[in-house]
Amino acid sequence: MSKPYVVGIDIGGTNTVFGIVDARGVVLASSSIKTQKHSTIEGYIDELYDELTKLIKANDAEDKIHGIGIGAPNANYYSGMIEAGVNLPWPTPIPLAQLVSEKFGIPVAITNDANAAAIGEMTYGAARGLKDFIMITLGTGVGSGIVINGQLVYGHDGFAGELGHVIMKRNNGRLCGCGRTGCLEAYCSATGVARTAREFLEIRTEPSILRNIPVDEITSKDVYDAAIAGDKLAKDVFDYTGEILGEALADFTVFSAPEAFILFGGLAKSGDLLMKPLRNSLEKNVMKVWKGKVKVLLSELKEADAAVLGASALGWEAKPVTAATPAALPTAPAANA
Amino acid sequence: MSKPYVVGIDIGGTNTVFGIVDARGVVLASSSIKTQKHSTIEGYIDELYDELTKLIKANDAEDKIHGIGIGAPNANYYSGMIEAGVNLPWPTPIPLAQLVSEKFGIPVAITNDANAAAIGEMTYGAARGLKDFIMITLGTGVGSGIVINGQLVYGHDGFAGELGHVIMKRNNGRLCGCGRTGCLEAYCSATGVARTAREFLEIRTEPSILRNIPVDEITSKDVYDAAIAGDKLAKDVFDYTGEILGEALADFTVFSAPEAFILFGGLAKSGDLLMKPLRNSLEKNVMKVWKGKVKVLLSELKEADAAVLGASALGWEAKPVTAATPAALPTAPAANA
Repeated sequence: MSKPYVVGIDIGGTNTVFGIVDARGVVLASSSIKTQKHSTIEGYIDELYDELTKLIKANDAEDKIHGIGIGAPNANYYSGMIEAGVNLPWPTPIPLAQLVSEKFGIPVAITNDANAAAIGEMTYGAARGLKDFIMITLGTGVGSGIVINGQLVYGHDGFAGELGHVIMKRNNGRLCGCGRTGCLEAYCSATGVARTAREFLEIRTEPSILRNIPVDEITSKDVYDAAIAGDKLAKDVFDYTGEILGEALADFTVFSAPEAFILFGGLAKSGDLLMKPLRNSLEKNVMKVWKGKVKVLLSELKEADAAVLGASALGWEAKPVTAATPAALPTAPAANA
Repeated sequence: MSKPYVVGIDIGGTNTVFGIVDARGVVLASSSIKTQKHSTIEGYIDELYDELTKLIKANDAEDKIHGIGIGAPNANYYSGMIEAGVNLPWPTPIPLAQLVSEKFGIPVAITNDANAAAIGEMTYGAARGLKDFIMITLGTGVGSGIVINGQLVYGHDGFAGELGHVIMKRNNGRLCGCGRTGCLEAYCSATGVARTAREFLEIRTEPSILRNIPVDEITSKDVYDAAIAGDKLAKDVFDYTGEILGEALADFTVFSAPEAFILFGGLAKSGDLLMKPLRNSLEKNVMKVWKGKVKVLLSELKEADAAVLGASALGWEAKPVTAATPAALPTAPAANA
């Protein structure tokens, strides 16, 4: 391979992490800058260029970068744009793929964080060899990346795979960040777990370790710690969360009949507390033809590297983006081609 | 094209309809046999062979058949089998693709009715030129065929796209034919419309034309006729049906971000009675990013020809199936290649 490396960039609200990755998923080197430091996107990209170029030179990787993959909130694979509605300090839409590609002279592909995670898992992690799977990221929100027949699903407009916003409670559902009510994300995210705990503490009278914490400060980590310590109410919170997530995965199964769901993110590390009620609920709720057949796996990417790895995997399929054709990628290539 | 025709065969519980179709979707000739007449699958295929061969000879189409496509209940594209749980007089699983292919010496591909309808619509109908759409068939049940990036979604096991069995009512939902409760099919099929009418007649006291019909004999056609005649209760039944279907389509949108939904089947011909509440509900329930963007279209295939056309379209991608490799089609080819 004449260009044996890719660069992965994960743009978060606070930090931008980037690294150089080889074809087997080894992160050669990584670094980060503060996302919020620059008031203009140009200033931000200048610093990114300086820091990344340093890293590339230090690792003797000049002229060896096949492509740059970027994971960013609301990033559209087709248009190369970061669309409106994100917590970034620059006006949207941001023609990110074009700006970075022009600055570096290297092909760039972008997508949202959950899609990047799915591609990363398929290229280097638990989904190697799987052609049909759904990545579910359980963090502050619930994200998803859907892979069908070896291809990531972008949909007609590039925004497919928002499974955190399937409606799980049609009546009296919780308000979701998207403005609607009853979304999966409002229940099965880290935030959702904390909300469930607060609800249970309010409507139930039994003692709980969680009553020692000011109710507005309870986090999913507190609920986890309490459950591990044997707290009944906290364990019930995980049962409730797992049950709803299992109902959701049962519904997702009738859509694309995936071989496996792969869970990623803080909440996915709750062990049997979440996995047991989740698997029970999935089996209870799924159509007969799929009973006992759908796997629920955990991500195999090291958390510290996962964001960079996921984004970098997209770098293998990056194609040159020119100023004249920022949106000229009408067809989605095979994600791991 | 050396072999300019395909054959489409639609196997229904009562009739098996088949026809010869050209590349533009013109049905040159068609005929049918009774599905239930033969106690063995071999006897059935013998009669199918005799009748279809007659049709082929009469149309001077010998050696001009590129492939045979078959739409049948529970037919698995990957394995070529009709799986268990269908209303056919022969023991399952039935290695249908292999049996027909060996009998005719022509490549055969099979799939279920809704998937065949989607491929037919993409090849000859309302979905020509669309790469991302979802076919919804509103008949006795609710079926679906999902097309993503120009490819029909079969999933890991060939059974993807059972959207009639997404759960719409998690509490006190109606019993569905699949054994679970609350499925979309239990509400938005022709049967579901009749059930809704019976429910409304029982819990409401207002007058209705439908009260002149014995309650157990009410069909969706009766409800349609009453609504057209101005009957308030019957119109409310369509409002209720359209609202649930709109909620469902809003959820399906977050999955694959289709450009359009295409409706097919008896209920799809209800005009504004169904389409108006359906479109309103879809717009009300869909995530902001898709508001005003997702089309709901009606099938453009003539009903009399639709089943044969849909099945025939699959014939263009049929590949030889041998006794040694009945399940040897691990990857789904482009549906309209």
